[in-house]
Amino acid sequence: MSQSGEPAAPARARRGRRAAGEDDARTEIVEAARRELAEHGYDRTSLRGIARSAGVDAALVHHYFADKAELFTAAMALPLRPDRLVTEVLDGPRSEIGTALVRALVTRLDDRRVRDGVIAIVRTALGHEFAARMLREFLLREVLHRVATELELHDGELRAGLAASQLVGLIVARYGIHLEPLARATADEVVRRVGPVVQWYLLEDLPSR
Amino acid sequence: MSQSGEPAAPARARRGRRAAGEDDARTEIVEAARRELAEHGYDRTSLRGIARSAGVDAALVHHYFADKAELFTAAMALPLRPDRLVTEVLDGPRSEIGTALVRALVTRLDDRRVRDGVIAIVRTALGHEFAARMLREFLLREVLHRVATELELHDGELRAGLAASQLVGLIVARYGIHLEPLARATADEVVRRVGPVVQWYLLEDLPSR
Repeated sequence: MSQSGEPAAPARARRGRRAAGEDDARTEIVEAARRELAEHGYDRTSLRGIARSAGVDAALVHHYFADKAELFTAAMALPLRPDRLVTEVLDGPRSEIGTALVRALVTRLDDRRVRDGVIAIVRTALGHEFAARMLREFLLREVLHRVATELELHDGELRAGLAASQLVGLIVARYGIHLEPLARATADEVVRRVGPVVQWYLLEDLPSR
Repeated sequence: MSQSGEPAAPARARRGRRAAGEDDARTEIVEAARRELAEHGYDRTSLRGIARSAGVDAALVHHYFADKAELFTAAMALPLRPDRLVTEVLDGPRSEIGTALVRALVTRLDDRRVRDGVIAIVRTALGHEFAARMLREFLLREVLHRVATELELHDGELRAGLAASQLVGLIVARYGIHLEPLARATADEVVRRVGPVVQWYLLEDLPSR
């Protein structure tokens, strides 16, 4: 432990001024992103526009952020990447997507910081139309559309939206309101009960009307 | 139209002072209920305690409010009665509970005032522990427990909680965040897709582990 712990303080001191300057630029970009997203929504905000608003070169934005989704999650202080979570799960077996998605989400939400951050986003979106717009455009573009494309479903965005509604509801009821006995159910129990629902929304045939 | 419309104004004028006094007492009771609920939660608040806090006789509380659930919905300005909605649906055929519940909810949420009120409650509960506690205790006592008892299920509260999580998620995603294409889907489409899920949560066998 001492070998890996000791060098930290001197290394931090050496980085000094340089690191502070980098942090400032990054912070300015994130603040510009927040302004642009609030004004124009997710779809109509570009990395170029954010660079202009921050007064920096577009290359510097790309230096810090791989894509718009990454800048969005930084601007919203979103402690998880729903787009990456979905991409991971879509790489697995098609028959287990529902279960894998619920397990991935519940596992991430075990972390209190993640849980609190996600709940704060939902709460803000319920109170402010600009936040709701950012969130819905981000989810449609980076999550629902991706699911629909990967699964090759004609009604994929609606299916993915229904699955998302169940996952959001799980977040609100289990972690936000702490509705019992759902709040104290084990992760396995939640996966067993909610996984098939998410799978059904995404891939199963609908009942006849 | 004129026959049913005309008497309204004189009648209102005749009630005059009396009505104002009644409104005051009712308002004081609702305010006392809000204080008591915020401090003690739903379970540990009694109509007697509310009467004491409002400085009125318990009989007066009973004059205005049939039960604690009614006083709760008034105190929270909740524009629908989830407990009544569930009771109505439980009176219908067991095989259609899921569909009937989703249809009843979506129909009520067509009304903008209802929608805005429900979303405000969820948002408040996500930001304040006392509001979350009131809501979860109310839902467990008056909704989930009732569903479990009526359906005679040993794991009924968990099943009802999962169904509630889907309904809350539908409220948040469709009416709060306006996630497309779910937000513009017809009521029939939502009932057709979400109804079977609620039915499954409440009554179907679980898959083997």
